[in-house]
This record gives sequence, structure tokens and C-alpha cells, in this order.
Amino acid sequence: MIKKIAVLTTGGDAPGMNPAIRSVVRYGISQKLEVMGVFRGWWGLINEELKPLSHRSVSGIIGQGGTILKTGRCAEFKTEEGQKRAYETIKKNNIDGLVVIGGNGSFAAAHEFYKKFNVPCVGVAASIDNDVNGIDYTIGTDTAVNTALDAIDKIRDTATSMERIFVVEVMGRDSGFIALTVALAGGCEDVIIPERDLDLNAVCHDIVHGNLVGKMSWIIVVAEGAGKAEDIARQITDMTSLETRTVVLGHVQRGGRPTAVSRDIALNVGKAAVDCLIAGKTDIALGLAAGKIVEVDFETAIKKKELKIDNFYKLIKTLT
Amino acid sequence: MIKKIAVLTTGGDAPGMNPAIRSVVRYGISQKLEVMGVFRGWWGLINEELKPLSHRSVSGIIGQGGTILKTGRCAEFKTEEGQKRAYETIKKNNIDGLVVIGGNGSFAAAHEFYKKFNVPCVGVAASIDNDVNGIDYTIGTDTAVNTALDAIDKIRDTATSMERIFVVEVMGRDSGFIALTVALAGGCEDVIIPERDLDLNAVCHDIVHGNLVGKMSWIIVVAEGAGKAEDIARQITDMTSLETRTVVLGHVQRGGRPTAVSRDIALNVGKAAVDCLIAGKTDIALGLAAGKIVEVDFETAIKKKELKIDNFYKLIKTLT
Amino acid sequence: MIKKIAVLTTGGDAPGMNPAIRSVVRYGISQKLEVMGVFRGWWGLINEELKPLSHRSVSGIIGQGGTILKTGRCAEFKTEEGQKRAYETIKKNNIDGLVVIGGNGSFAAAHEFYKKFNVPCVGVAASIDNDVNGIDYTIGTDTAVNTALDAIDKIRDTATSMERIFVVEVMGRDSGFIALTVALAGGCEDVIIPERDLDLNAVCHDIVHGNLVGKMSWIIVVAEGAGKAEDIARQITDMTSLETRTVVLGHVQRGGRPTAVSRDIALNVGKAAVDCLIAGKTDIALGLAAGKIVEVDFETAIKKKELKIDNFYKLIKTLT
Amino acid sequence: MIKKIAVLTTGGDAPGMNPAIRSVVRYGISQKLEVMGVFRGWWGLINEELKPLSHRSVSGIIGQGGTILKTGRCAEFKTEEGQKRAYETIKKNNIDGLVVIGGNGSFAAAHEFYKKFNVPCVGVAASIDNDVNGIDYTIGTDTAVNTALDAIDKIRDTATSMERIFVVEVMGRDSGFIALTVALAGGCEDVIIPERDLDLNAVCHDIVHGNLVGKMSWIIVVAEGAGKAEDIARQITDMTSLETRTVVLGHVQRGGRPTAVSRDIALNVGKAAVDCLIAGKTDIALGLAAGKIVEVDFETAIKKKELKIDNFYKLIKTLT
Repeated sequence: MIKKIAVLTTGGDAPGMNPAIRSVVRYGISQKLEVMGVFRGWWGLINEELKPLSHRSVSGIIGQGGTILKTGRCAEFKTEEGQKRAYETIKKNNIDGLVVIGGNGSFAAAHEFYKKFNVPCVGVAASIDNDVNGIDYTIGTDTAVNTALDAIDKIRDTATSMERIFVVEVMGRDSGFIALTVALAGGCEDVIIPERDLDLNAVCHDIVHGNLVGKMSWIIVVAEGAGKAEDIARQITDMTSLETRTVVLGHVQRGGRPTAVSRDIALNVGKAAVDCLIAGKTDIALGLAAGKIVEVDFETAIKKKELKIDNFYKLIKTLT
Repeated sequence: MIKKIAVLTTGGDAPGMNPAIRSVVRYGISQKLEVMGVFRGWWGLINEELKPLSHRSVSGIIGQGGTILKTGRCAEFKTEEGQKRAYETIKKNNIDGLVVIGGNGSFAAAHEFYKKFNVPCVGVAASIDNDVNGIDYTIGTDTAVNTALDAIDKIRDTATSMERIFVVEVMGRDSGFIALTVALAGGCEDVIIPERDLDLNAVCHDIVHGNLVGKMSWIIVVAEGAGKAEDIARQITDMTSLETRTVVLGHVQRGGRPTAVSRDIALNVGKAAVDCLIAGKTDIALGLAAGKIVEVDFETAIKKKELKIDNFYKLIKTLT
Repeated sequence: MIKKIAVLTTGGDAPGMNPAIRSVVRYGISQKLEVMGVFRGWWGLINEELKPLSHRSVSGIIGQGGTILKTGRCAEFKTEEGQKRAYETIKKNNIDGLVVIGGNGSFAAAHEFYKKFNVPCVGVAASIDNDVNGIDYTIGTDTAVNTALDAIDKIRDTATSMERIFVVEVMGRDSGFIALTVALAGGCEDVIIPERDLDLNAVCHDIVHGNLVGKMSWIIVVAEGAGKAEDIARQITDMTSLETRTVVLGHVQRGGRPTAVSRDIALNVGKAAVDCLIAGKTDIALGLAAGKIVEVDFETAIKKKELKIDNFYKLIKTLT
Repeated sequence: MIKKIAVLTTGGDAPGMNPAIRSVVRYGISQKLEVMGVFRGWWGLINEELKPLSHRSVSGIIGQGGTILKTGRCAEFKTEEGQKRAYETIKKNNIDGLVVIGGNGSFAAAHEFYKKFNVPCVGVAASIDNDVNGIDYTIGTDTAVNTALDAIDKIRDTATSMERIFVVEVMGRDSGFIALTVALAGGCEDVIIPERDLDLNAVCHDIVHGNLVGKMSWIIVVAEGAGKAEDIARQITDMTSLETRTVVLGHVQRGGRPTAVSRDIALNVGKAAVDCLIAGKTDIALGLAAGKIVEVDFETAIKKKELKIDNFYKLIKTLT
């Protein structure tokens, strides 16, 4: 029987990490476990920055963005030395298992750590990019999408009033998920994503053609992994002689009160992660797929996630 | 081959009806169909209040709450005479099929109408109550849940600052879905729903016990179908001698800009409904289940939807 | 020279109390003062519930609704005995002056306390009702108005889609300020406030007349001090035979992230209150009037505030 | 007696232009005036793109960002020829006066036009930059400030969770108003504005000093007129060896539902502009100063507005 677990958040922060922490802590305590909070991700394990969390220590965080445990990327954990020191912290503190709240990078690190030191690790898929393979919806994605959509709706006011072409860059290094979702939901005229070859001729053709029939305002969404808004805007101007404007939404998409969906997933998956550790499971990430919580091997989870983009893209183009 | 379809919204309005209309109209036109918009639900069919909708007529509505076609409940459509007049409008205008955007009541009416007059009818599940059987998430639910959650977060500020017990009534005549979801996501202390017998003794026991250990603020969510906030608050005061406050969120939950999820479902299901009519399907409602669009017989759709409440409820109580 | 001050929040909570506390604490410390935080308003003085606040103790609260010091109404402080005990706490803790963040009731109490015990008291006008005489805009009003306006905008979606008459009750026990402001900004058709005799015949006349020319949806705003939404709605139904719906916005208006205006006033007035105590001023409330911070005698501040309602009301009626 | 007026929006769009249009149209009609709407600013006068606006034509726009009349900058109106053609449109359509909704550039153009052709022009101060001299608060500023503040609050989540330095660029070409206001209200650590010499050494000194005592996250707000976020961030990194991140809020600040303050000013000033034209006034801009509507000569309005920045800046630094 396990007696003590630790929870940490690693990688980029995502809205919903806090309710996930709350769920791990309170559900863990309800199952008679001691729960330690590790600060600043792997760094905290290496440097023994951790402390016991009580029921009350996670009061009032359910609606807050970010993570009270803080997070970060940690180069030292990629070294033998770093991993060893992290393991020593775990031994010294009698920790029987880890709940790792994060994305692909976090799961790759947890997988390696588990294989080397045999410490039970269960992942909670949290990432605004929604790029964990085998999982439909990660914690934070819905919030980020709604934040981006809110921005797109605002930009639409100016695009329409001033009859302008906007190129709006949203997050998504390897994934066009946010871009596709907000382009569809925002009624945007085009979308450029890493999963699809960019045909700027076609984009410009549509713009020029639209202009001839009186369509004067455009919003083109670009995933950051597919190019810089500024470059694309300049090329469009070069090819069409029309003025363009750019907006890079940036880190605003990471923050804010988590939406109901982000909290709901966080609370349910957080609990499930504790159940998995109790049941002796390890080396898996948990998340939502087809409306249910699923367990995905870390090895599978960190593979490139395929996005079914063709119907998505066609619908965007049909509806504008 | 069908040539002309009509779209109408009936029953209570839900945020996302407008993007659904947009999708039916624009996708329909892209498939070489004529699309008529019927005003005020069934009433518009009875009174021949309808007009052709163009691509441009649905511009700028993707982010708007309510429905540009207006909606309402129509007693006359429950009469033989009313249905006959509706059918005459359909014949006279050469309408080959109907897209009915609404909830259970709308589908029951559409089912009866189809059986009597053999007019192809496809339903698009839109209802904030999320009470369509066989469908996980109806258009509008996610928006209503987030609106209610936003209100709960605000009430929490006062509950904590003034150390008070709040009873907050949310929508849901026959369904505790909104209540359970916001109670969990809002970190509420208790929830009262129609699907579960109310044990006010247990509620009051928890409050009194909490008070003894220093927990001074409470938010108890009530689905409207499970009782009036005012009555429940008064009983709590009677049993505990503690002051209570009530908030009835009411119609605010019906309105507002649809969230990304509500728009996404609306746009995809709207398109799918047109595809169904083209494919000769009828007497079915469309919606999202297990992450996919599903077709559900009207007869099944209007049956009482079972909500798996036990785990839900247990999690709420464990995490507070 | 004063060395130590205390800050408390009393009466109903208002969004912006937290940034006001932050300003008093950090500015006070920058002026070499010790700042004590008193918990639960006057109750905390009576029961010696207070503690020193550091620069860090007010971190991260600038954007939070409610008050970290908690607040409440305190019957005991109206008694000789209660006041005496509060005074003893002040003596015992060597407190040289009080910053009282609250509304009219708080200032009346502070005024009496100052007169009896000669403890320097400076008020910071915070109240969503905007009913402090001599001050144009109290902390919290702008947030409450925007929350109510947001709700009105949402209700408008349903009112328009379902062609209904809504009676919406907003806060304002003695003051029609919130009601007038949101009625104007929300494009509402009528407004009922305590400062103006209610002529329900005129309201109904407008509705019936509007109906004849095709105006089918109405939003009528009622300040809570002018009547209950339910009563007014029923009377309108009785007089016009038209269906009505009601919404009571309630405590939702008290909470939420303070707006820029509410924070701006809070931060500036909080600082000014400390400056006043340092300068030896007392028995005054501070707030914003004509774009400047003004000092108003408590005696003046607690008098009935006159609202110039005629032009306001006329504009509302002209623009709908 | 004047009989017909025209209204136009020019320059950059600002949230609140729509309620201003609504007020001009509906109040104008209530005063027995005909009101023409001119499209795309001065361009519409030059090209005779205008049409009569009815009471109903401005329905439902009170809560919408942007401007239904569209807007833009018009080089042709700076030419003799362009102005003459605009004047001809005015004569031909028997327009007795213009309401010009816009900022400094718009007022400069209107002033010149009035002097040359003697067409009565009254300005309605609308600009998110709040840079109209003699006026405290222009239409749109409060909305833009709240949008920027909302973004800052979100960025704070990541800044705190990841312990990072953020440089956030907000709008304000010649004015630090937005930057100062959100820096104060957002609890930001520093602010860089065009009205104040940039001392990057001091900024970096504070950061390094803060770091030593454990302060790890920073948000530094930059007005666009004072430098590019990217340049400043790079310089900070060069001088401190600390990682930095940038966000450029951009056009998002122009859009969105106008806040209560923006609508309130718009509705009152719109009405006042019509009253001025009726009273035979011209060559003035209207706006809010010290809580009242004031008339400012165009010549004064377009002068450089002085911002009292010293106390502002000192308060920001004291409170962080």
C-alpha cells in the first residue's frame, strides 16, 4: 500500500493546473494518502523544494489560472546527475509515486525517469496546445481556445469597421488545433497550420476574388508553428497590393480563469491519477478521449498526434 | 434530389442557435440547395412567415446569442388544424425537408409532424439543459454552464468575505446537469438536483459540522427542478439558525456569446443535418456523443435522459 | 508623528476593497508606518482580531473581488460596551488612526466612534450602490454596473429571440444609480427607481403602444429599493394581459474582478487616506468627485445623496 | 432652424462609436431632424456614400464594438479637390451640420473643412488613446483599458507561475495614458511611456535588486509610442542576463463590447452634439471633463494633451 505521493507541474503553464492540483491533494487525502507539493517542476525534486499540502492549502485556487506549485523547464533533469538527485529526494521523503501535471515534454521526462529509477509516475495531460497523442482534450486547451476566440471577436470589430485584412497568430508550435478551432468558431476566412502545406497563392486568390465581389475584411489565423504573422502579412501585401495588419496573441492565451471544461477535466483526471497510483499503475498519461478518461502509455502519448484536418479545413472554407 | 429546405428554431433559445443557422444556410447553399428561414418556430410555418436566406443574411451572427429567426413555444401546432396549415405552407413553398433546431419538445413535435405528413425532419439538438437522450452535449449547454460558473465565482467573493451561506438556483427543469457541473467546477459545497432525493438533514449536518471547525462560507447549488432556492434557504435557516442568502440566476444563463464548444458543435451539427436531409434521412436528432456526431431517432431522443450522478456527486463532496 | 495605523473593511463587500487595502498597506509602509489589518470589520476591533500586514501579505489581491480582511455588519459596535472594547483594542495596540473602507453605515459608525473616543478615522468610500453624499463614484460601483450591464446584454438575447417583456431587478436599496446607469447603457425601455414616483400606467401604456407598432421585446430595470421585480411584472401582466418574465440579479453584482475604474479609485483613495491620517486629518470620507479626490465630512457623507435623475430618465426614454 | 444633419465616424475605430451613432440618430429624430449616415468617414462625403438613418436602423448596436458606419483614414480629404467634392455632397443633400465622431486627426480635418466651407461641424471625442486635449475621458478609452487590464491579469498568471519577466506593449502612439492606467491597475512593476525619458538602467537595477530579495516575476508595460517591446526586452536581457518574454496586445484593444463608461459617455455626448448643432454652435469637440460634458474649440482639442504623470508614476512604483 502506498502512503505518500507527490504532485508537480512542469513545462508551460496551462489554465486548469490549479484545479488539477486541488483534486490530487484533496482526493489523495480522502484516500488516506499524504500529498507533497513539489515546487518549480523537476527543479524542485532536484533541489528538494517540496512540502506537505493540506486540504486547506488548495483553498480558493479552483478558479485561478497558472499553478500555485509554479512550473518551468529544467535542463538539469535531462542529466544523469539531475535525475539522481531527484531520485534521492524521492527516497529521502518516502514518496511512493508522482503525479506529473504537464504535456509531452513532461511525459517524456517522466517516462525516462520511471524506466531508470522505477518510481511510479502517472501523468495528467495539461497543455494548451492539445498535442498529447491518444487524448482528445488536454487541460487548458478549452480555456486557451476561448481566450483566442474572444480576441478574434474583438479584432473582427475593427476588421469590419476599417475593412482590413488581419493576420492573427495563435499558439501551437507543432499543432494547428487552436488555430483550426478558433478559425472555425470565429468565422475566419482562412487558416494556416503546420499540418498542411501553405499555398499562399490560393489564400491571395481568395482575397482578390473576394475583394472584387465586395468582401473587404479578412481574418486569417496562423498557428505559430506554421509561420510568423508578420512574414505572411508582408507576403500577402506583396502579392495583392492590399494593406494588412497583424496581431500576435501570445502568452495571453496561457492565463486566465479556467473554463468549466478545463476545470471539469482537471478535477476528474486529477482524481483518476491518484486512483491509478493506488492501483499500482505507472508510466501512463491520463486524459479525456471520446468523453471518457483514458490511460495512455507515456510512449504512445509523446508520439506525434494526428489531427484530422481535412474536414475541418473544408468546413471553415465552406462557411465563410 | 431535394432542392429546397427550411430551417427553424423552436422552444427556449440557446446560445449557439445562430451559428447553427449559419451553418445550415451556408452549407446548404454550397450544396446547391435553397434555404428558407422560418420565423418564430412552428408559428412561422402555420402563418407562412418565412423567407429565403442568402449567404450574406447570416453574416456576423456566429458570435451572437439568441436566434435571428426568433423562437417560441406554439400551442396551435399541437392542434390538427395548426399542423395542417404548417403542412400547407411546406407544400406551397416546395420545401423538401426541415431542419429543426431545438430541444426535446421540438423533437416530439417534429416526430409527430413527420409521422402525419411525411415531411422529412432532422433535428439539431440545442438546449441549455442538456436533456436530449442519446446526446452528450447539446448546443448551448457549455455556454450556460460557463455563465453560471462565472456567477458562482463572483458569489464566492461575497460568500468568503462575509462568511455566508448562499443557496444558488441554476436552470434545469428535469435535469441536474448544469447544477452538478457548476457545483463541481465552482468548488461548491453541496448540490441539490431532481435526480437525487434531497436529504436536507445531511446538508445541514455538514454545515453545522463545518461551522464547528471554522468553515464559515457555503455555496449550495440547486437545480430549478429540485426546489426553489428561497424555500431551501429558509429550511436551512430553520434547522441551523444560520443566516442564508439566495440567488436565482435565471434567464441570464440563456444568453450571451456562445463559447467555442457551443459554436463548434453548432457548426458541425448544422452541416450534418443538411447532409442527412440530402441523404434522405429523417425523424432523427443530431448531436455530439463520445466526441462524434451521432444520429438518434426522435423517439429515443425525447425519452428521459439518464445522468450518471453518483460519481459526480461523490467527487463534489470529496473535493470540498 | 503617527507610527501605526489600522485598516478595516465594513458593511457590504464591494469589488475594489482589496486594491484599496493593498494601497493602504504598501503606501503606509513606504511612509514608515506600521499597518495592522483588522478582521471582519468592527467585530475584529471589539474582539482584538487583527495582525500586522506586510508588503507581501497583499500580493496578488489587486485583481480579486471581495476583501481579504473579510467584512460584516456588527450590531455590537452600536452598543456602548462594544465601542469601549474596540477602543481598548486600539489603545492596547498603540494604533494612531483608522482607515475605514466602507459605505454610509460604516461612516456613521466611524463618526460616532471618533466623537466619543477621539480616534482619528478616515473613510474610503466603497459601496456598489454609489450612495455616499459628496462623492461621484465610490469604489465598486463601476464593477457592479458592468456586471449588471453584462447580464442585461445577455437577457436582451432572449428578450429579442422570444419577444418577451423582462423585468430585471438590480441592486440599490435607496439609490437608483445602478438602475439608471444600466438602463441607459443597456438600451432598456424603462426604469423604475426609488427617487421617482412609479407610474405603472405610463409604463404599460408604452408597452401596449409599442406592441401595436411591432415592438415585441422589453427590458424594464427596477432598483431593489423601488419594488420587487415579481410584483411589478405581475401588475404589468394584469394591466396588459402580456406575459412577463423576471430576473433578480442579486449578489452576483457584488463580486468579480474589479474593473480598471474601481481599481484606479481604490489605489488612489487608499493612498490619500494614509496621507490624511499622517496630516492629522480625521472624521472625513475620501472619494472621487469631478475627477478629483475630495475630502467630505462624515456628517455630510452620510446624508441622503441627491441624484440628478430627470435628464437621465429623459435620455433613456428618448433613445429607446 | 436646421433640418438635416449628417453623422460620420473617422480615424481609428473605438468601442462606443456605435452607441454614439445611436444617440445622434435617435435624439436627432426626436428633435425633428433628419439624420444621414455617411459611410467610411470623409471618403463617404467625397463619394456621396450616405443614406438616411431611421430609429430602427440603429437597433441592437448599443453593445457592439466598431462602427456600423465604418471608418478609415482618407488621404483625399486632405486635398482641395477632395474637400470640394465633400462640400458638394453636403450642399446637394441639404445637410445643415455634421457630427464628426473621432479623435485628433478627425478634428483637425473638420476644423479645416469648417474654416474653408463654413459647414457647421461638432466633434464627438472618440479614441482609445485618450489624447484629445481638454477632455478627460474619450469614448473607447475605458473599454481599451479594461481589455488591456484583462490581458495583463492573464499574463500575470504565467509570469508568476514561470517566474518570468514580461514586457507588454499596449496602444498609445503619443500618449502613455493606457500604459500608466493598466500598469497601476494591474500592479505592474514598471511602465515606459513617451512622456518620460526612459532610464533602462533604473529599470534593470530594480529587476536585479528584486531578484536578490526573491522577486522573480515582472511585468513591464510599454506604450507603443515609447518603444517596441521586443527591443526593450532584448536590452533588459543584455543588461541583466535574465530571460524575458514579450507580448504586443495590438488591435485587440480596439474592439469588444463597450463598457458602461464608454457607452455612457457616448450616449450623453452624442445627444449633446445634436443640441450644439441645433443651437448654432460649431468648430468644437465635445467630451467629458471633471465629470461634465464640455465644449472645446477644435483648435484647442488638437493641441498636445498634457498628462500629469509624476504622481501616477510614483504611485505605481510605490505600490509594487
